[in-house]
Amino acid sequence: MFREAIYHRPKNNYSYAYDEKRLHIRLKTKKHDIDQVKIIHGDPYDWDENGWQFSRKNMLLQASDEFFDYWIVEITPPFRRLRYGFELQSGKEKLVYTEKGFYNVAPTDDTAYYFCFPFLNAADVFKAPEWVKDTVWYQIFPERFANGDPSLNPTGTLSWGKSKPTPTNFFGGDFQGVIDNLDYLVDLGINGIYFTPVFKAHSNHKYDTIDYMEIDPQFGDKETFSHLVKECHQRGIRVMLDAVFNHSGYYFSPFQDVLKNQEKSAYKDWFHLRNFPVIEEPRPNYDTFAYVGSMPKLNTEHPEVRAYLLEVARYWTEEFDIDGWRLDVANEVDHAFWREFRKVVKKKNPDAYILGEIWHDSMPWLHGDQFDAVMNYPFTNGAIDFFAKDAIDASSFANAISNVLTMYPANVNEVSFNLLDSHDTPRILTLAKKNKARVKLLYLFQLSFIGTPCIYYGDEIGMTGGNDPDCRACMEWEEQKQDQDLFHYVKLLIEFRKSDSLFGNGGSFRFLHTDNRQNSIVYEKFDGERRLIFVVNNSKAASEIPISSLLNLETGKIVEWIILDHLSLQKKPAMLESIIRVQPLGFRIFELK
Amino acid sequence: MFREAIYHRPKNNYSYAYDEKRLHIRLKTKKHDIDQVKIIHGDPYDWDENGWQFSRKNMLLQASDEFFDYWIVEITPPFRRLRYGFELQSGKEKLVYTEKGFYNVAPTDDTAYYFCFPFLNAADVFKAPEWVKDTVWYQIFPERFANGDPSLNPTGTLSWGKSKPTPTNFFGGDFQGVIDNLDYLVDLGINGIYFTPVFKAHSNHKYDTIDYMEIDPQFGDKETFSHLVKECHQRGIRVMLDAVFNHSGYYFSPFQDVLKNQEKSAYKDWFHLRNFPVIEEPRPNYDTFAYVGSMPKLNTEHPEVRAYLLEVARYWTEEFDIDGWRLDVANEVDHAFWREFRKVVKKKNPDAYILGEIWHDSMPWLHGDQFDAVMNYPFTNGAIDFFAKDAIDASSFANAISNVLTMYPANVNEVSFNLLDSHDTPRILTLAKKNKARVKLLYLFQLSFIGTPCIYYGDEIGMTGGNDPDCRACMEWEEQKQDQDLFHYVKLLIEFRKSDSLFGNGGSFRFLHTDNRQNSIVYEKFDGERRLIFVVNNSKAASEIPISSLLNLETGKIVEWIILDHLSLQKKPAMLESIIRVQPLGFRIFELK
Repeated sequence: MFREAIYHRPKNNYSYAYDEKRLHIRLKTKKHDIDQVKIIHGDPYDWDENGWQFSRKNMLLQASDEFFDYWIVEITPPFRRLRYGFELQSGKEKLVYTEKGFYNVAPTDDTAYYFCFPFLNAADVFKAPEWVKDTVWYQIFPERFANGDPSLNPTGTLSWGKSKPTPTNFFGGDFQGVIDNLDYLVDLGINGIYFTPVFKAHSNHKYDTIDYMEIDPQFGDKETFSHLVKECHQRGIRVMLDAVFNHSGYYFSPFQDVLKNQEKSAYKDWFHLRNFPVIEEPRPNYDTFAYVGSMPKLNTEHPEVRAYLLEVARYWTEEFDIDGWRLDVANEVDHAFWREFRKVVKKKNPDAYILGEIWHDSMPWLHGDQFDAVMNYPFTNGAIDFFAKDAIDASSFANAISNVLTMYPANVNEVSFNLLDSHDTPRILTLAKKNKARVKLLYLFQLSFIGTPCIYYGDEIGMTGGNDPDCRACMEWEEQKQDQDLFHYVKLLIEFRKSDSLFGNGGSFRFLHTDNRQNSIVYEKFDGERRLIFVVNNSKAASEIPISSLLNLETGKIVEWIILDHLSLQKKPAMLESIIRVQPLGFRIFELK
Repeated sequence: MFREAIYHRPKNNYSYAYDEKRLHIRLKTKKHDIDQVKIIHGDPYDWDENGWQFSRKNMLLQASDEFFDYWIVEITPPFRRLRYGFELQSGKEKLVYTEKGFYNVAPTDDTAYYFCFPFLNAADVFKAPEWVKDTVWYQIFPERFANGDPSLNPTGTLSWGKSKPTPTNFFGGDFQGVIDNLDYLVDLGINGIYFTPVFKAHSNHKYDTIDYMEIDPQFGDKETFSHLVKECHQRGIRVMLDAVFNHSGYYFSPFQDVLKNQEKSAYKDWFHLRNFPVIEEPRPNYDTFAYVGSMPKLNTEHPEVRAYLLEVARYWTEEFDIDGWRLDVANEVDHAFWREFRKVVKKKNPDAYILGEIWHDSMPWLHGDQFDAVMNYPFTNGAIDFFAKDAIDASSFANAISNVLTMYPANVNEVSFNLLDSHDTPRILTLAKKNKARVKLLYLFQLSFIGTPCIYYGDEIGMTGGNDPDCRACMEWEEQKQDQDLFHYVKLLIEFRKSDSLFGNGGSFRFLHTDNRQNSIVYEKFDGERRLIFVVNNSKAASEIPISSLLNLETGKIVEWIILDHLSLQKKPAMLESIIRVQPLGFRIFELK
């Protein structure tokens, strides 16, 4: 056995409290190196004349990627304490892996050899709001969704949709426009809106905050916003705002005060200024986002700044009853600040969702004391590369997605924010070179995957757009220009997700098969009672997947989910042939009981 | 190269802020598999026409254990942001390791491949008090150190040292006894006292707290305690108390109230009661330490309990000016509580030391938001097994100690509480089967190692004692019964530590050589200017270590540290022979400039 590849370390994705009773324990081993893993586990204080008393339980091979197998097991320790090790078997060879190293036989003279989950304290359990698991998000870039109140139009506002978006032009999108179109969103079936920034700012994207305590006047006022939130809530739609706390905009008055008064400014400690006078060129002599002088980094360690931003968080959470915060450039702000932020927000709304924008491994923010979730870009990249761009093969895709699932605890994955694109990327139909079948596979995968999916406004009706600013075009409201077929397909998948929890977060996810030659994958969602088997052909040729040899399908009832005209579902009893034929860029779904 | 063995994950012992400017990055690889590792690093926003701009820097092979090599490098990123990967070389093979996997050539089209240290925010830097690095602790079990005020003697107090300690007997040790003997401790050279519990309790060990707000009357009153702290501070000695917050004693009045009033008790939520009536046998139907009914676990998630214990922390920190808290059974209390505890304590005394009792891998408590240090039992076990018990060979010892050093960040190691024994273990002279030479090697290693060493009262004068309660005997104050030779040896080593920072925390530690046949080790402390080389013979035969072949000793000045009669140091110019001869259970120290 390959000892150097075996990895476990407690209190992260490798061991965590799934809830107030259950622990999940994972182990990483070299791919195909180990036949079976059992966990050795017991209460640290259970002793008899033979020494420490432990039990064994089989671990499940949950996933594999290029180099590793990942094993998982769930344990409910009666006294909420656990000591544990791993018994590995490869052929006839057996080995016990503990915190102190490897043994041929599990030692029983001391528990100090073993890994430790000292006590499952409820206070430390990662707890995201329950509603997030059943939410399908819709991302709105407010300047471009709908213009409902032309009286608010900024100077120079262009006719809706008649020009191409540029970094600086305006089309007058506003809150009234959103309110006017909520029924469209209800029809689509989404039940959460993520708004990119709405606070007073200079640009059309509003990431350059001028005043965190004011609504940008082009969108409406606080009354309109309050009305919007109420209208959303009446329709069962949650509202998430975007908090840009890493840096302010150039016209944020404390920064303007610094520019004016330099070292005499009362706000000089609000930023990270290195010397005076403050200069922007060739490189700013103060900390910024990237090297952008107009985006000065806020000093979140300064008590006044902390108090100000925490008051912003409290104010909008409490006074406007919002349901969540998406945190821009969240990884560059200190952890200590986010711990305070969580306390303030959850005190006012224990059910608020806190979502960080982080592009890399985010485990340090996901221990339950900071964020509920991060933007799941590893998911995005995997799905886009495979389904939209056809740039990676089936097994690379499965490796990427397996990595996503194993890098975080299961309760983190269930609320992970699974986006396909956004105001920062080309739209999916553009990424898929306008191949709608590819976009349909993307949505199938996104909407049947673990997590909380998000649809970027307009994608559901086939809008296209390249990189920013092209992806920020005005929402297409002329029905004849909307792709109704795509709309109804997405709507149907959202219905599946809502009506059958196994389709959404109610089951576990597992790849069953990848076929690089036919560019096809088979994955399943399972919950111990039922299985949903997804056979997906990502190639331009029909594929033939030897499904029955992969599965134990001999017993039980088999039903095929057939989608009629992308409008309705027919569940049809099926006999599984040894070979499943799938249309080019098509898919089939089988339900097994 | 063995890819499956290569490991790195940011924001723990593998990457951390050493201070507000410097990052340390580590990498684990299969032992002897890689010849050289370079870090590839740069600011994420440094781009030119060739793509991302990065630098390379050699990493140092810091340590090895049974299976792995550990590499380290220090980087000072000018804008406090870092993206990085690793360039590995083995023979002619080269490989680049990133967060996204392995590449033959470092990719420059995106920084998203790379590991990320997003921003070095000062608020998140692990910062233990500076004074701890220069502290030598002395652990006092107050009932057994000295009886300075017989008027406080509990009923049935026995004559000092005339009986064997039992689990229940009393000898009348008290604060006045400590005050009376502070000059002895000053003479020894220690500058910190760790007191096992002093709050009102039933037993002689006082771990069964009755009242956290009162001093146990057998030790004195608050005035005596205040006086004791002042007397210590006048002598430059810090004072650390023991906080037993995981569970209370049986006679803690809230628990007594529960026993009396059961479900009607106002304190029923102060504990984790499962049902009523509360029963202790055969197993308690409430959470306890182990299964001990008289040690009911406190519900630190209940606001009243949290407020009470945090007030305890505040009260003794603020009102009595204590310098640290040692936290009993720290791993079974919730992380959320310890974060609050840290805030309360550091607000009153930013220079307080917070030390957790944890026996296993403690990384989750050592991110800077909870503890400053943990009791370093892995160090204890390694040192005892090798020097005292002669139970492991030289390379196993080096593996164990290398593991200690690589499992935590360097700034954590510098304040790690390095004990050799305690009130819970046999004394070192007993563990060494009364072989004083072995005890001397133990002290040499402990006092020249990274961390903050602790001497258990009486060990320094050769007291013996088996497991609890035998190890808790009365301090021997009759000079003719004290081992003066050992005392002066320990005193001299403490002087070395204080007078030459390279001997203590001022340098890095590295093994240079282990010899299982001769049972000998060579290690060094180095700081870039000087090197201290320790050649230690742990066998009963003289050893001959081929030191010059191990080191680059050709140039520079060499001085041997010669200890005369264990009383004074003579530094003598030396010529290093190719073979260094070391006496049985002896050692030699060479200084190189």
